[in-house]
Amino acid sequence: MNLPTVADIVAAAGRIADIAVVTPLLESDALNQAAGARILIKPENLQRTGSFKVRGAANRIARLSADERARGVVAFSSGNHAQGVALAARLGGTTSKILMPADAPALKIERTRAQGGDVVFYDRRTDDRYEMVRRIAAETGRTLVAPFDDADVIAGQGTIGLELARQAAERGAVLDLALVPCSGGGLIGGIALALRDRSPATKVLAVEPEAYDDTIRSLAAGERLDIDPTRTSCCDGLQSRLGEVTFELNRQLLGGGVAVSDDEVRAAMRFAFTELKLVLEPSGAVALAAVLSGRPGISGRTVAIVLSGGNVDPELHASMIL
Amino acid sequence: MNLPTVADIVAAAGRIADIAVVTPLLESDALNQAAGARILIKPENLQRTGSFKVRGAANRIARLSADERARGVVAFSSGNHAQGVALAARLGGTTSKILMPADAPALKIERTRAQGGDVVFYDRRTDDRYEMVRRIAAETGRTLVAPFDDADVIAGQGTIGLELARQAAERGAVLDLALVPCSGGGLIGGIALALRDRSPATKVLAVEPEAYDDTIRSLAAGERLDIDPTRTSCCDGLQSRLGEVTFELNRQLLGGGVAVSDDEVRAAMRFAFTELKLVLEPSGAVALAAVLSGRPGISGRTVAIVLSGGNVDPELHASMIL
Repeated sequence: MNLPTVADIVAAAGRIADIAVVTPLLESDALNQAAGARILIKPENLQRTGSFKVRGAANRIARLSADERARGVVAFSSGNHAQGVALAARLGGTTSKILMPADAPALKIERTRAQGGDVVFYDRRTDDRYEMVRRIAAETGRTLVAPFDDADVIAGQGTIGLELARQAAERGAVLDLALVPCSGGGLIGGIALALRDRSPATKVLAVEPEAYDDTIRSLAAGERLDIDPTRTSCCDGLQSRLGEVTFELNRQLLGGGVAVSDDEVRAAMRFAFTELKLVLEPSGAVALAAVLSGRPGISGRTVAIVLSGGNVDPELHASMIL
Repeated sequence: MNLPTVADIVAAAGRIADIAVVTPLLESDALNQAAGARILIKPENLQRTGSFKVRGAANRIARLSADERARGVVAFSSGNHAQGVALAARLGGTTSKILMPADAPALKIERTRAQGGDVVFYDRRTDDRYEMVRRIAAETGRTLVAPFDDADVIAGQGTIGLELARQAAERGAVLDLALVPCSGGGLIGGIALALRDRSPATKVLAVEPEAYDDTIRSLAAGERLDIDPTRTSCCDGLQSRLGEVTFELNRQLLGGGVAVSDDEVRAAMRFAFTELKLVLEPSGAVALAAVLSGRPGISGRTVAIVLSGGNVDPELHASMIL
């Protein structure tokens, strides 16, 4: 199993510098007051394509050989990873084929195409997307850009941790905690790896919707557990369970987790709108929900939160915050 | 007439450093593509209290004598200036009395009070707010913090121009144009003064709603004209005419103006939501509206736009973008 190192993250930062932007670190006195803590906000909704996903995709694609680059990449995603891969492929001098569910939101399909992605559809009910993507890879010679369970993808997401440590230090802050959304575990794994090196006193906590709390249960059990398929959440972007690589990495790095309810997510999206003037998708709001919900251990501390994305239809957003 | 200088702006930046935040400079490939130009975004909706107003108020309040500080300040505003003065007064070690229209949105009244402002009401139809505020000042010894027609207030808003010039230079950009919302003219006057010194090749253009285009007409006529009181716009924050100080300053500094329609403002608010993940109030979106609407002179240039505020009720915002 190939686990990334902090050196991989430093190398990734150099590789993706022309593709991903350095997002700012924001602070809001309204949020500090509401949370009873000093909260430093890393808004990856302001990242290109509206989520952090382009970082990992750009790093993976930068590592292709000339041969692989000539043959292109393939990925599956119903959401942010699709747009990230399509943009990173176009700017990285290759082509992408993106497998999306036929019932994906029209907007997401359109945006993936606008970034240059060649979209092919699968049927959620009848097709096995893993099988389909492997077949496309075999038939076309395209390289799979995995959504999270890949050392290069994790290292790309980890560049957020380098920025966070540097930006916090620039304003004289020492982070007690970092709260990061967790689904497949690539984002939090990369960030935790960077922070262990650059800010070793910082405890990193996974934030999950209550319905998809496999990471919290897996860390407690010491084995990789599954999501309960009978439960649902408004956080459509956090439905993946931890991967094998990301489980191994995160079990070494994380200090535990926090589960948030859908009501807490909606309240956080509303707070982001009214107080932070930021648009968040439900999955992008879970860490904000955690610090706004009076969880033990937050009060009085210095806490970084990652807002992972803002790709949400205006209609859905309005229905959630009004 | 006391016109501010660039030295006043530099001094203001030092005075307000602990009260106002340095907002980031953002760039979006989606916006660059839509505008056919390189657009650098200065998001003052991310400023404390959700608009730029706290900068000017904090600078004015920092210049009070000990005697004046002991007696407090007074201001009138139905919107962003009220919150800016209340916060700046509290953090600046004094008290504020804020005259607001009795029919101001409950949220704005509540927020002004939450910042420590002592809110007193006037009736838009029967009371003369200028007369009322002068009477309060005379009776209580409080110092008036004018919304725009004051050298210290203008210098405070001008700190945005210093940040803009520095942040653009840091990313190797030379600004051809800066588009700034204009109402009373303090924001744009301060920014234009800073840019004349720090980025002399940059032409600064006033952006106004079509219905409140007195600056564009005044610059063309060479005299200070009034707003047509029969016309209305969704940009409730841009209803002031140029002041006397700000007319004198801006006639020396501005390269003209652009008027935008309410439909263009709504489209810009929607673009900010879907592409930039930023919440803008109508008045805060006019410069974005100008670069999205294919105005001559924008294409192919490097253009700074100031997004001046994001204080908008979720219900109103939804009704405007859906």
